[in-house]
Amino acid sequence: MARSLGELAAQFGCELVGDPSAEVIGVATLANAGTGQLSFFANKAYRDQLLVTGATAVVIEQRFAVDCPVAALLSDDPYLTYAYIAGELHPQPAVAAGIHKTAHVAADAIIVASAEIAANATIEHGATVGEGAFVGAGAYIGRNCSIGAYSKVLANATLVQDVKVGERCIIHPGAVIGSDGFGNAQGGSGWVKVPQVGGVRIGDDVEIGSNTTIDRGAIDDTVIGNGARLDNLIQIAHNVQVGAHTAMAAFTGISGSTVIGERCMFAGRSGIVGHISICDDVIVGGATMITKNITEPGFYTGSFPGEKDRDWKRKVARFRRMDDLASRVTALEKLARKNSDGN
Amino acid sequence: MARSLGELAAQFGCELVGDPSAEVIGVATLANAGTGQLSFFANKAYRDQLLVTGATAVVIEQRFAVDCPVAALLSDDPYLTYAYIAGELHPQPAVAAGIHKTAHVAADAIIVASAEIAANATIEHGATVGEGAFVGAGAYIGRNCSIGAYSKVLANATLVQDVKVGERCIIHPGAVIGSDGFGNAQGGSGWVKVPQVGGVRIGDDVEIGSNTTIDRGAIDDTVIGNGARLDNLIQIAHNVQVGAHTAMAAFTGISGSTVIGERCMFAGRSGIVGHISICDDVIVGGATMITKNITEPGFYTGSFPGEKDRDWKRKVARFRRMDDLASRVTALEKLARKNSDGN
Amino acid sequence: MARSLGELAAQFGCELVGDPSAEVIGVATLANAGTGQLSFFANKAYRDQLLVTGATAVVIEQRFAVDCPVAALLSDDPYLTYAYIAGELHPQPAVAAGIHKTAHVAADAIIVASAEIAANATIEHGATVGEGAFVGAGAYIGRNCSIGAYSKVLANATLVQDVKVGERCIIHPGAVIGSDGFGNAQGGSGWVKVPQVGGVRIGDDVEIGSNTTIDRGAIDDTVIGNGARLDNLIQIAHNVQVGAHTAMAAFTGISGSTVIGERCMFAGRSGIVGHISICDDVIVGGATMITKNITEPGFYTGSFPGEKDRDWKRKVARFRRMDDLASRVTALEKLARKNSDGN
Repeated sequence: MARSLGELAAQFGCELVGDPSAEVIGVATLANAGTGQLSFFANKAYRDQLLVTGATAVVIEQRFAVDCPVAALLSDDPYLTYAYIAGELHPQPAVAAGIHKTAHVAADAIIVASAEIAANATIEHGATVGEGAFVGAGAYIGRNCSIGAYSKVLANATLVQDVKVGERCIIHPGAVIGSDGFGNAQGGSGWVKVPQVGGVRIGDDVEIGSNTTIDRGAIDDTVIGNGARLDNLIQIAHNVQVGAHTAMAAFTGISGSTVIGERCMFAGRSGIVGHISICDDVIVGGATMITKNITEPGFYTGSFPGEKDRDWKRKVARFRRMDDLASRVTALEKLARKNSDGN
Repeated sequence: MARSLGELAAQFGCELVGDPSAEVIGVATLANAGTGQLSFFANKAYRDQLLVTGATAVVIEQRFAVDCPVAALLSDDPYLTYAYIAGELHPQPAVAAGIHKTAHVAADAIIVASAEIAANATIEHGATVGEGAFVGAGAYIGRNCSIGAYSKVLANATLVQDVKVGERCIIHPGAVIGSDGFGNAQGGSGWVKVPQVGGVRIGDDVEIGSNTTIDRGAIDDTVIGNGARLDNLIQIAHNVQVGAHTAMAAFTGISGSTVIGERCMFAGRSGIVGHISICDDVIVGGATMITKNITEPGFYTGSFPGEKDRDWKRKVARFRRMDDLASRVTALEKLARKNSDGN
Repeated sequence: MARSLGELAAQFGCELVGDPSAEVIGVATLANAGTGQLSFFANKAYRDQLLVTGATAVVIEQRFAVDCPVAALLSDDPYLTYAYIAGELHPQPAVAAGIHKTAHVAADAIIVASAEIAANATIEHGATVGEGAFVGAGAYIGRNCSIGAYSKVLANATLVQDVKVGERCIIHPGAVIGSDGFGNAQGGSGWVKVPQVGGVRIGDDVEIGSNTTIDRGAIDDTVIGNGARLDNLIQIAHNVQVGAHTAMAAFTGISGSTVIGERCMFAGRSGIVGHISICDDVIVGGATMITKNITEPGFYTGSFPGEKDRDWKRKVARFRRMDDLASRVTALEKLARKNSDGN
């Protein structure tokens, strides 16, 4: 949808340096933008691209605007402002109200008239789909699940049962929410399944990535707070509570019954053991495993960066011989004490 | 389903302290239980909750029963007894025999009359679905797969081909079983696909988690033993053999042709390289990579716990300078020897 | 399909030691092969099995052929030759042209007549499916996606939108390609979604594993080069570029905007942080995290092998006390200098 720079400046509170009647219809990178496209400058590494950009306008901080060869929308936080404008230029596709003829909807499911149920989707007994909500092709909405207003459950995602999704959420393809937690008791002749009877409660404005799995609670519900952002291929075990606005990158794994605070950030492949708690405003580095409660906000890590194999192998060999090194230091200390006594 | 405490005590061999005619209809946590609900006490950390629980009855060890303010079902292993009783109170939903009209079943597939094929499922040529078995909505049962009696393949799970599933198994949503293993030979102009022609054999009473992947064998079958328990997002490569009653937590990865014994336990994100063997009764810690055969039962680990970033970074810096530290110790030893010779 | 050894030798340029009229109809392992089956010998560990194999023929290097009790197809690279012959004996199942009656195809989608659309699949507006291509049961081909000639998108895979797949590719079940990248800007009251408007471009002869996720670009496309091989449960973030013929094992994760060269190999659970570049011909070891640009081909690692828990714990304890050890060495050096000065 075409928008004039003047309109955008007014709507998003930016000062405009340039022609207010110029129009943009979409976004592009500084390097590839052409006429009618808007870009942003938020990383000095791209200054060379800024200098020659063909964009119609760039969202940029005032202090860098001198380098901008085209119209500038000035913002203290260009990435945030860009996010808002891009959302305006590239709105989510409209929902086409109705139930596709190849979908199966149980007789007692409640589908609000403004909702869309796409091809080959299945909606089970007792499920409800709210105003303007969307259930994608091949998605499965199990018993007693509810999808809040304007939420989207995309293609081939699965909500197993007793999953309550808030408003304006996006559940990406292949995500599985509400499957049984990993509960097994050791019996005399093997594992005995511990029935999982809880559900999953997901707040408003939550986004859940592709092929991510969130298990139902063993007894009480698993809970994902408002505004949380989960990337792809994440595992949230039974009874976990994730605080509002917490973000997790791909391959993050949270073990059972762990409670995570608000506004935390987890880098890729980080993991938290079960039955502990992490306070608000904690940042966990990549490939880091947290094994104890964290009660103080801050940045926590525990991983090694890779390097040339021969260098790494030598370090690992040293690490393996640290006992020996420590013994040698102790022997030297003993000798030094003896010499000192002997003086 | 409501059950009296007297019946439950008799059925599961517990001594009952309390009114045998009192009834429970479901389970709840000690903290949240109310009238008609059963809870259990297996972790002393929850003693405060036990003291004030509103449950109708608690499964508990005799030695702690003095603290139980309500009826007590005495058990030497309360978690196991709870698992059995919870299974009684919360039975799996009954299978509704029949083939949904939106499902597609190949003409030569064999579906036993007592089995249920749910909406939008697809059953391919030569597949068989056994007595009381369940194929969920959107699930795919490929060529020459067989589903044993009372097994469930849940929504959107995929059995690619030549997958034999035993009896009473549960395959959770999004799991993919029987896809091609990662077999590639280096040719002159790039990778050449090595055809994968084996299948997958899954024993009885196996549970496979959501979005877990198990590849078909390159030539012989990939095998999962009786009673094995696989959590979500696990990767089992081609030709792997997993022994009976082995359990694996989320993100465990087993590389090709590795053989794993019985009753092993793998914590989250553990991994085993290819072409090795792990004996029975091995426990592997979280985020641990096993690179060699294990021939002795026991507990194996190889990961570091995360900590405050500045503390961790200092340790990593020391680790990087261990060569230097070792050289300094060697120099001190040389000096000490010289001094000693000089005396 | 039965083939004579003489034909196979001629077709694949092998010298044959044995009866050219003998026929094989399939492949088997050395240990399990019987009459009519072909095996290969590429790993000396299996010499005992070679000596007693019941195969009709074995693909083998000339220098080992003396140990082969049956017909030998001599090859300098038996695994590669085996791959080609196995492909001949076990051809991919033929595509049955046509659109299944339970599939949903948008009115303006273009399905070439020789393509097959299987049961319960969904093809959206503007999508195209090329000559001899296959879309499996329950698969979803979103808006403006295109599937090149002879490519296969298998059961329950999802191509979200704007995904261009080249020729002769295989997308395995449960893979999700083209979902939104993880783009979030910090707003005053929580995360603001950064619209993801790029697509995904996949070259020719690419294979993508089960439940692997590849996100669409934030603005420009995410790109997977010709001949790349991705195993199961891999995460490729937005804007990543993967070079031609690069192979990645399960759980590999590539963070946003990283550029990876050609012919690289990533072992299982390796990861690359965002916004860096990896040159051609880099090999990354298992469970290794790369955090900086790599400009030199070679082998890079950064992980520790697991061992007996008590041995590992002692090493970790030493690692934690390295500051102390270094201080003690410094004290000894100071003392040695003092003594030396005092002499």
